[in-house]
Amino acid sequence: MNPKESKIVSMPIVDIKQYLETINTDQLICLIDDNILALYQNFFNQLGKVSRLSFIGVPAGESVKTLENFSIFIEKILETGIHRKTHLISIGGGATSDFVGLLASTLLRGLSWSCIPTTLLAMIDASIGGKVAINSKSGKNLIGGFHKPNHVIISTNFLATLPEVEKKSGLGELIKYGFLSRKIYDAIMQQESTEELISLCSRFKEDLTVRDFYETSERKSLNVGHTLGHAFEKLYRIPHGTAVLYGLKYEVIGYCKNNKMLSKLNEMCSKVGLKEPDFCFERKDVEPLVELCFKDKKLTNSKELEFLVPHDIEVIKSHIVKKEELSTLLKKLSTQ
Amino acid sequence: MNPKESKIVSMPIVDIKQYLETINTDQLICLIDDNILALYQNFFNQLGKVSRLSFIGVPAGESVKTLENFSIFIEKILETGIHRKTHLISIGGGATSDFVGLLASTLLRGLSWSCIPTTLLAMIDASIGGKVAINSKSGKNLIGGFHKPNHVIISTNFLATLPEVEKKSGLGELIKYGFLSRKIYDAIMQQESTEELISLCSRFKEDLTVRDFYETSERKSLNVGHTLGHAFEKLYRIPHGTAVLYGLKYEVIGYCKNNKMLSKLNEMCSKVGLKEPDFCFERKDVEPLVELCFKDKKLTNSKELEFLVPHDIEVIKSHIVKKEELSTLLKKLSTQ
Repeated sequence: MNPKESKIVSMPIVDIKQYLETINTDQLICLIDDNILALYQNFFNQLGKVSRLSFIGVPAGESVKTLENFSIFIEKILETGIHRKTHLISIGGGATSDFVGLLASTLLRGLSWSCIPTTLLAMIDASIGGKVAINSKSGKNLIGGFHKPNHVIISTNFLATLPEVEKKSGLGELIKYGFLSRKIYDAIMQQESTEELISLCSRFKEDLTVRDFYETSERKSLNVGHTLGHAFEKLYRIPHGTAVLYGLKYEVIGYCKNNKMLSKLNEMCSKVGLKEPDFCFERKDVEPLVELCFKDKKLTNSKELEFLVPHDIEVIKSHIVKKEELSTLLKKLSTQ
Repeated sequence: MNPKESKIVSMPIVDIKQYLETINTDQLICLIDDNILALYQNFFNQLGKVSRLSFIGVPAGESVKTLENFSIFIEKILETGIHRKTHLISIGGGATSDFVGLLASTLLRGLSWSCIPTTLLAMIDASIGGKVAINSKSGKNLIGGFHKPNHVIISTNFLATLPEVEKKSGLGELIKYGFLSRKIYDAIMQQESTEELISLCSRFKEDLTVRDFYETSERKSLNVGHTLGHAFEKLYRIPHGTAVLYGLKYEVIGYCKNNKMLSKLNEMCSKVGLKEPDFCFERKDVEPLVELCFKDKKLTNSKELEFLVPHDIEVIKSHIVKKEELSTLLKKLSTQ
C-alpha cells in the first residue's frame, strides 16, 4: 500500500512481458499513453497475451493530468469491477505515471501499482519516488499525494522514439542531478552511457525518497531550479526539464556570488550535448512570473517562498524570499 | 502530514473558538455542512472572529461526496491561494469529514486538517481514524485514502439539532462497538451517558487505527456488518448506521450457530432505546444485493468476499464467501 522502496529494474523491452507475469495479482490494468500505444503495437500485442491483463489508453502527455480525466478514468476503472489486489501499471512519461499513480492512490483507498517510464525525464526523475499528481487551474501538480510504485521497469528501448524536444527536457533534469551528486556530476563530465546515467539518477532519487518520503527535509533538494522552472514552464509552455534548466540558470545567476556555478551548468550542458541555455525573459513578464512562483505548492506561508540553490556540487542552500524581493531580482535579470 | 494519532478532545460548543486559536497556522479554512451552517449562526458569527479563518459551505450530508464536488471545491480552495501550512477544518457529519479529509489529503499533496463532528455517527465512528473518501457510480467510498485529522473536537451540543433518524443511525453503529469491545458492551448494558459512550467508542477506534492504520489486519474488525450493510444502504437508501445494524443482524443470523448473538444485538438495541430491528428483504432483491456486496471495496479478489462476523463479544471471525454461496444464503434469509 505504501511501500518504503520501489524496486528499480532495467531490462530490454522484450523481457517486460515475462516480468509482469511475476506480479502477484489476479488483475493487472495497464494505463498507456495514447502515443506509446500507437508506436509500440507489436509490444502491446505480446503484452496482451499476459493472462489477467487489460489495457486502457489515456490522453498523451501532460494533457491527461486534469480533474476531468481523473473523474473519467477513476469511474472507468471502477466499472471494470476491481478489488484490493488489482495492480495498475503506468506506461508512458512522467505525466502518465503522475496520473496513474494518483488513480492508484485513491482507488479503494490505495491500490498497488508499477510503472514503465518511456521518456528520459520519467526514467531519471518523474516516475521515481512516488510523488503523484494532477494539475489545477491554479497551477501544476497542486492536487496529488505520495504513493510509491512497487516496481519501476526501465527499458531504454523506448527512447528510440522519443522526440528531440523531450530528450532535451530529460537532459535538463539530468543537469540538476549533476549539482546534487558528485558521483553523477563526474559521470556526466566523463560522458558515461545513457543507461549508466539513468541508473545513477534513478537510484539517487529513490534512495533519497526512502530517507525522506514526505519531503520534510532532504528531499526538498530535488526541487532546485523548480520554483522558477515551473513559472517558466507555465508562462512560456516550455517542456518541464528544459524549464528546470532555465530555472537553475537564473537561480545560480541570482544567488551565487561568482560565476562558478553558471560555468559548471554550461560545462555539463556541453558534455551531454545540450547547447548553453540562452533563454531570457522580458521585464513585462516579471509580475506574472512572480505570481506563478507564489502559487507554487512549496510555499510554507503566503508571504515567503523558499528557493533552493546549488552553491557548489552537493552544496544546496535555502533562500527565503519575499514577493517584492523576488520582483526586484527578476527585474534586474530581465531583458529591457 | 500523516500523523499516527489524532488528538480527541471533548468540549462545549462555546469553547471551540478558543481551541481553534491554538492551531499553529496562518490560514484556517472551515468547510461546513450547509445545514449546520444554517442551524448554528451564532456559533459561526463567533467563529468568524478568529483571525486567519475563512468559511466555505458545502452541500449537506452524503450529497457532497461526488467527484464533481471534489473538483469544484478543490479548485475553489486552490483559488484562495493556500500554502503547505494551511489547515482545513471539517464541521459536519461523517460525510463532510470524509469529503474534507480527502480534499486535505490531495491538496498540495497533503494538508493538515481537523474535524468537528456534528452527528452521533461521526463522533463515534465516521470522523475517527483517518479514512477519507467520496462515492463512485459503482459504489460507496470507492475513491479515497487514509489521512488522519490532527484534532477531533467533540461537542455533544450539536446533537441537540440532530434529526431522530440520524440519531438512530448513530445508535446502530454504537451496537457494532458493543460486539467489538467488552468495555463498550458493558457500558451499553449499564446505560452509561451518551458522552461516556462517545468517549469510549471514539477512543477505541482511534487506538485500533493507530495500531493498524492501513487496515491490513485488526482494523478490519470495524467492518462487521458493513458488507451487507452497504448493500442495504445503497439498495434501500437506509441511513448508514441503521443499515450496518441490519447487516449485523443478517450476518449473525446467517453465520452464528445459535441465537445468542442475535439476542445480544436485540438486548443492546433495547438498552440504547432502539426497537429490535424488524427489517427484512424480498427474494427478488437477492441478486441486486449480491451484486452490490461484490462491488464492495473490501474484496481481495474478484471471486470471493470476506464477511466479518461476531461470534461472541470481542470474538470476530472471518468467513470467505463465493458469489453463489452468498446468493443461496440470502435466498434462505429472504421473505417469499
